[in-house]
Amino acid sequence: MKLLEDRIIQTGRIINNEILKVDNFLNHQIDVNLINEIGKDIASIYPNANKVVTIETSGIAIAYATSLALNNCPLVFAKKQASKITSNNNYTAKVKSFTKSVTYDISIDKSYLNKGDKIVIVDDFLANGNAGVGLVELIRQSGAEILGFASAIEKGFQGGRENIERLGIKVYSCAIIKAFKDNKPVF
Amino acid sequence: MKLLEDRIIQTGRIINNEILKVDNFLNHQIDVNLINEIGKDIASIYPNANKVVTIETSGIAIAYATSLALNNCPLVFAKKQASKITSNNNYTAKVKSFTKSVTYDISIDKSYLNKGDKIVIVDDFLANGNAGVGLVELIRQSGAEILGFASAIEKGFQGGRENIERLGIKVYSCAIIKAFKDNKPVF
Repeated sequence: MKLLEDRIIQTGRIINNEILKVDNFLNHQIDVNLINEIGKDIASIYPNANKVVTIETSGIAIAYATSLALNNCPLVFAKKQASKITSNNNYTAKVKSFTKSVTYDISIDKSYLNKGDKIVIVDDFLANGNAGVGLVELIRQSGAEILGFASAIEKGFQGGRENIERLGIKVYSCAIIKAFKDNKPVF
Repeated sequence: MKLLEDRIIQTGRIINNEILKVDNFLNHQIDVNLINEIGKDIASIYPNANKVVTIETSGIAIAYATSLALNNCPLVFAKKQASKITSNNNYTAKVKSFTKSVTYDISIDKSYLNKGDKIVIVDDFLANGNAGVGLVELIRQSGAEILGFASAIEKGFQGGRENIERLGIKVYSCAIIKAFKDNKPVF
């Protein structure tokens, strides 16, 4: 998606050829025009989805835009829990944090995932794919069908795509960064 | 806003005449049709706003819908921090948690609040108003103009409106619950 690649080039900040900061349009300040286009792009790949699932916090805006482009279908965001709350009312999974060496629980109330659902999972970033893998494991407990996973920005050199595809799940990203070179993205 | 009042009556769950759970359309599963209408309602009160500010997590969807109804103006969400990170690049304020007896920091990068901004602050709930007061204090550091505060659901018996109005800020809520009686809302 050229619009997103251009924006990453123009306003993304890359630190130490490793960290990409897109605070300016994606996960602190949100450019609603751009995110609407990202939502349309994702919806065009999964036009038969009837529910959008994401994870708090930064996935919510993209999930909202995706839902807008899918006839305002329901969206559900998984909650992250630092502490471990066991509840019979929730589907849960464990996710290993990429940046911090901790494992956290994610959960969704069982009422909001059902057998007839055709789900697209969305997130802002795809790095090592741990959050995506956790969401797939969680959703599969419900019997809902997963049409695929979509991220706005994929860091294509961190193995996330392979980790999710290994579960039999299709992966799409609006922009795929192959590498960082001289603190610039290579698409 | 009758649509929202009806939905609270139909699907909200009130526990011990105190806690209102609206997980089913507002802060876990999101009914995008309804939230779009909430956004339009808020935008109709503050039609001159050119930036929407909220606080993670549950405010983001409502802020997105409000921005859609304000010509896709930028939206910014304040981040909550458990640990205290002092940074010269952020405006910060302290917020006392209503449910837990802890104080947390909220912050917004200085780049995203500017003097020409005409801001509407939005949140999902207005209870005691501590988050709203914190956001007002934070935004005022930037010199941006605050047109007002808006919540989807106000619990009108917990003093939040008075706490925000005391700062000279207009308050609007789409639905105002005067009391809970027999685990039912009274509007």
